[in-house]
Amino acid sequence: MVEASPVAPGLPLEAYLEGAARRVESELVRVIEAGRRRGPDRLWRAIAHALLGGGKRLRPALAFATAEAFGAESGEGSLVVRFGAALEMIHGYSLVHDDLPCMDDDDLRRGRPTVHKAFDEATAVLAGDALQSLAFEHLLADPDPRAPALAALLSASATRMVEGQSLDLLAEEEPPGLDEVLDLQARKTGALLAAAVTGGAVAATGSDQGLAGVGLKLGLAFQIADDLLDLTATADDLGKRVRKDAGAGKATLPALLGPEEARRRAEGYCEEALRAFAGLGERAEMLSALARYVVARRK
Amino acid sequence: MVEASPVAPGLPLEAYLEGAARRVESELVRVIEAGRRRGPDRLWRAIAHALLGGGKRLRPALAFATAEAFGAESGEGSLVVRFGAALEMIHGYSLVHDDLPCMDDDDLRRGRPTVHKAFDEATAVLAGDALQSLAFEHLLADPDPRAPALAALLSASATRMVEGQSLDLLAEEEPPGLDEVLDLQARKTGALLAAAVTGGAVAATGSDQGLAGVGLKLGLAFQIADDLLDLTATADDLGKRVRKDAGAGKATLPALLGPEEARRRAEGYCEEALRAFAGLGERAEMLSALARYVVARRK
Repeated sequence: MVEASPVAPGLPLEAYLEGAARRVESELVRVIEAGRRRGPDRLWRAIAHALLGGGKRLRPALAFATAEAFGAESGEGSLVVRFGAALEMIHGYSLVHDDLPCMDDDDLRRGRPTVHKAFDEATAVLAGDALQSLAFEHLLADPDPRAPALAALLSASATRMVEGQSLDLLAEEEPPGLDEVLDLQARKTGALLAAAVTGGAVAATGSDQGLAGVGLKLGLAFQIADDLLDLTATADDLGKRVRKDAGAGKATLPALLGPEEARRRAEGYCEEALRAFAGLGERAEMLSALARYVVARRK
Repeated sequence: MVEASPVAPGLPLEAYLEGAARRVESELVRVIEAGRRRGPDRLWRAIAHALLGGGKRLRPALAFATAEAFGAESGEGSLVVRFGAALEMIHGYSLVHDDLPCMDDDDLRRGRPTVHKAFDEATAVLAGDALQSLAFEHLLADPDPRAPALAALLSASATRMVEGQSLDLLAEEEPPGLDEVLDLQARKTGALLAAAVTGGAVAATGSDQGLAGVGLKLGLAFQIADDLLDLTATADDLGKRVRKDAGAGKATLPALLGPEEARRRAEGYCEEALRAFAGLGERAEMLSALARYVVARRK
């Protein structure tokens, strides 16, 4: 059984997440400042709106904790922090495009207007497009010989992610079965979370350390937790519209299996990850705490 | 004075362009086939629609001819052909997003329905998004040690391209002056054309051979030629709506300077490129022929 609530103010995990977010955000701010000097101002303000509107920065934190599990540092200026920023650029672009009127048509994201609401639709399309190339530009500007492997990993998971989005759209027309929902979510959410974990290992060791499967499971657990929160949380808790998935008839594991069985699955996936991380020894304790947080978080 | 019409059926340049297109298209077909096996089918059909709808494949041809000018081959399976396919993926994604209702709102591209017309808007957003990550995924899958430098080049020019698109949108609100139009077009069109030329050099030699400036000039010449064609050609000639730029009040060099002065500028830029290419010797003859074609083409 996964511990129900591992996070409380003052506990190490919360401090770790805050520190990870701080390092990623300073990196993002530097990139945005360089962009704003070059312009155009409207595009770069939209990019800043998308990138600096909060968020848990869970993907970078997973990458950092994995790198640390293999003995690497994740301080400012390290390759894995650059990778973390690139992960947030890809994640951020996907949210901006996902919120567009022709996609999920959302007005609110993390309690703030979405990019096409704060600016306009064309600017939102372009900000998302620029964020994607920027992720690769930023990562490949690092002279570290491991940067290209990280960019390769990131690009492959970004393509899988869009395939998952497309499967998600198709699911509205034809309700998928369990296997299809798992495939959809492994691509839509799992691929980028798996890239965070394997990227941390690559940054530290040059190899993904066979963690791709574990990363995918963690991604599935994360998505189930998200879908469960969508059922139980309020819009104020999440800073976005809730229960939209049920309304749009989207296929989720809680909808297919019921919330209890879905939570059991999420915990099972998480325990698989925890077993793998336990094998990495003491240095992987923060990574394990993050894995527990993925399913136990309240927002 | 740049030769007025260097292309006629049977002449070497036409055959060269056809051969380049054939090599790029077989590479694109292979990527699409792998994608279609993985699915989702709708997304990959949209990607195929975007990538295989014709087009001059001028960017890959420039990359190939530049690589050859430095003594490299551009046969099937070579790094520069892979780079050419990646260039077409980035170019293709930009066209799909550019045609969207919230952008240029075009129904027709190369005589066929645009992606959001043939499929739907959400699929067009996703197909463009996937094409962009696919470009980096495809390029970085090449074990050649020069692939990362090409991906870095491509990502930087892709970001510049989006900045140019954004400047173009802003120009509709506030008419830019000559310097601003040149900056806009250097980013919107010049950056990717410059990447084609410098990428060819990088693939062949590992260095951009100082060709970035020449590539940008060639990009500006290409854009002026495009804007002149938009004024004089028919929709049948181009397979897309014409005179839309004048209608939307978009700032182009022909609009700012008049068509004759704009053509003189284009020829001046082209001659700068020709002088640089002449310094590369006989092997650069095809590259020079392509540079002449950039301004003299009739579609």
